[in-house]
Amino acid sequence: MSDYPAVRTLMGPGPSDIHPRVLQALARPTIGHLDPQFVALMDKVKVLLRYAFKTENPLTMAVSAPGSAGMETCFTNLMEPGDKVLVCINGVFGKRMLENVTRLGGIPVVLEFPWGEAVDPAKVEQALKADSEIAIVAFVHAETSTGVCSDPKPIADLARQHDCLTIVDTVTGLGGIELDVDGWGLDAVYSGSQKCLSCVPGLSPVTFNDRAIAKIKARTHPVPSWFLDLTLVMDYWLDSEGTGGKRAYHHTAPVNSIYALHESLVMLKNEGLENSWQRHAAMHQKLAQGLEALGLELIVDSSIRLPQLNLVKIPEGIDDAAFRKQLLEKYNLEIGAGLGAFAGKAWRIGLMGYAAREENIQLCLGAIKETLAEMRS
Amino acid sequence: MSDYPAVRTLMGPGPSDIHPRVLQALARPTIGHLDPQFVALMDKVKVLLRYAFKTENPLTMAVSAPGSAGMETCFTNLMEPGDKVLVCINGVFGKRMLENVTRLGGIPVVLEFPWGEAVDPAKVEQALKADSEIAIVAFVHAETSTGVCSDPKPIADLARQHDCLTIVDTVTGLGGIELDVDGWGLDAVYSGSQKCLSCVPGLSPVTFNDRAIAKIKARTHPVPSWFLDLTLVMDYWLDSEGTGGKRAYHHTAPVNSIYALHESLVMLKNEGLENSWQRHAAMHQKLAQGLEALGLELIVDSSIRLPQLNLVKIPEGIDDAAFRKQLLEKYNLEIGAGLGAFAGKAWRIGLMGYAAREENIQLCLGAIKETLAEMRS
Repeated sequence: MSDYPAVRTLMGPGPSDIHPRVLQALARPTIGHLDPQFVALMDKVKVLLRYAFKTENPLTMAVSAPGSAGMETCFTNLMEPGDKVLVCINGVFGKRMLENVTRLGGIPVVLEFPWGEAVDPAKVEQALKADSEIAIVAFVHAETSTGVCSDPKPIADLARQHDCLTIVDTVTGLGGIELDVDGWGLDAVYSGSQKCLSCVPGLSPVTFNDRAIAKIKARTHPVPSWFLDLTLVMDYWLDSEGTGGKRAYHHTAPVNSIYALHESLVMLKNEGLENSWQRHAAMHQKLAQGLEALGLELIVDSSIRLPQLNLVKIPEGIDDAAFRKQLLEKYNLEIGAGLGAFAGKAWRIGLMGYAAREENIQLCLGAIKETLAEMRS
Repeated sequence: MSDYPAVRTLMGPGPSDIHPRVLQALARPTIGHLDPQFVALMDKVKVLLRYAFKTENPLTMAVSAPGSAGMETCFTNLMEPGDKVLVCINGVFGKRMLENVTRLGGIPVVLEFPWGEAVDPAKVEQALKADSEIAIVAFVHAETSTGVCSDPKPIADLARQHDCLTIVDTVTGLGGIELDVDGWGLDAVYSGSQKCLSCVPGLSPVTFNDRAIAKIKARTHPVPSWFLDLTLVMDYWLDSEGTGGKRAYHHTAPVNSIYALHESLVMLKNEGLENSWQRHAAMHQKLAQGLEALGLELIVDSSIRLPQLNLVKIPEGIDDAAFRKQLLEKYNLEIGAGLGAFAGKAWRIGLMGYAAREENIQLCLGAIKETLAEMRS
């Protein structure tokens, strides 16, 4: 066997630590993507994803590619050229939404917020009142680049009042913080497998409600992607649900990754969704207290802080890259670099999924303490 | 552990049997997608893919999604709206190329061939002579829906003479039959991980030469996909090659699937590319003789037959679905149904990668013989 990778503790912005059960599931023998046993597993994954998203949406599934493709699935299907989209930007992933809109021929209306702050519903309301042509409101629930949580419900309420659809990024949110797709009335939502679900990277759970599907069915332009066209993907994921019957071939599903996602969702269900949120919150409290005891400063205000992604200000005089390198090489501990406005200014310490546990906090705090002391001596 | 899938022998059109070494590699502990160890592994994967494709193209890598996304990567980057594309269709996957062209605003010139026949270079030449505006020639090397091999070299020669780029589908070809990307002058080529490479489904190896890259760099319209935009993907896969240095973050790579791809490519290299082609040819001969001895007819003429995918005419009076169900349930053997023009008329028996071995042929011939006898009695 060649090139066995190091065993790391993953406390960056994702991928996060993966439970050995999930890795074992991943390595089960591959079966055909149209095998009745696999079709039955897809049905189970849909049911479990609905649980995780808190939705009854039939069109809830995993896109066969990373979160970026989940984002693109939303924009490429829901938006037509010429559609006006309000894009709320408070970090890297809001900017990426804007990239999607402009590349696909949408007309963006950009609402920018300072990095480290949440999307302000009052500003969203102003923008919607100022422009009645806006058809879609796009925003990030859990901004992975800043560690900020924006509150989806008031934004979704406003969008509906103004007859707009919402596209919501919760790549880092799903399983880690409260999310209530149906209760909050979110229309199109995408996530990633490799964050708080503790699954391998490469899949993007998505869910679409009837309003979103109606918009897709009313399209006048073809979806500019065959691979991501939901009207085709639906035939593969939804046909004859629960019957284990034959489905239309679309593409070859990443069978083994679906095994892993299933196992991670079973584990989430066993723990209980609310318990998982609670665990992330509790581990965050503990980490935050420990970091503050070391004299470190958390950048994001505690009222809008994501428990699963902690932005820590790099102390004066500490070399960012050298510090992270030491953590990686000496302790096999990965923490994340800052992105965008926070590059070189902050570390991103993730507590996602299986990584949000007591032993990781001890390792992380201990390694940081020792490394800071060494670098300062 | 929940829901352990059956252990199948995969002799359909893919996914194919996966060597246990590849499954073990898949289950190695996940590391970060920017970890120096992972970056070094990506470099190894690029070198091994160049070996498999027979190319020196620096831009040789794996798209983080199935073969359909590899196809889309080629069209979405190389073709601009208004570009005229000669699409050669002799099966399902040529039709899918046409879908890509039309959805992305290209102008297709369609050249259709009967299912079960190869792309005829003489017809390609006629079409290119008849329309000097054609900018791209798209065709399938190994048509998975019909089991037909088209000869890429004369088509590529003609394309170059007429100042056209080629986009070539060899999803089922790579590793199973002769392929010489540089020697044949192919410009943009895509494949899949789950066919003759015996890797898990979910990745699409691709390679682009300088002519293809020049076309991408000369674009006047933005690539309508952020996820598949090669100018961005390149920054992640190519920056500072060989240095193990830092790369630009684009998306979170499917780390574990890359472990598996690496292992399958190491195995291909160890066997030797030409030896792998030879093994597929030899196993095909043996299977074909065995099937003919059972009175079964191979549909595709032996001169253009893909050894790794055998179209077998369903004998009169045999119920297609019941027959395949029996193979699956009694022998855990998957063979493929016919697609498109061959639906209900043919079976597709794959001998791809690790599935192309003596024990599989014995199982397949034995199970078919017994099942035919039972159904006829």
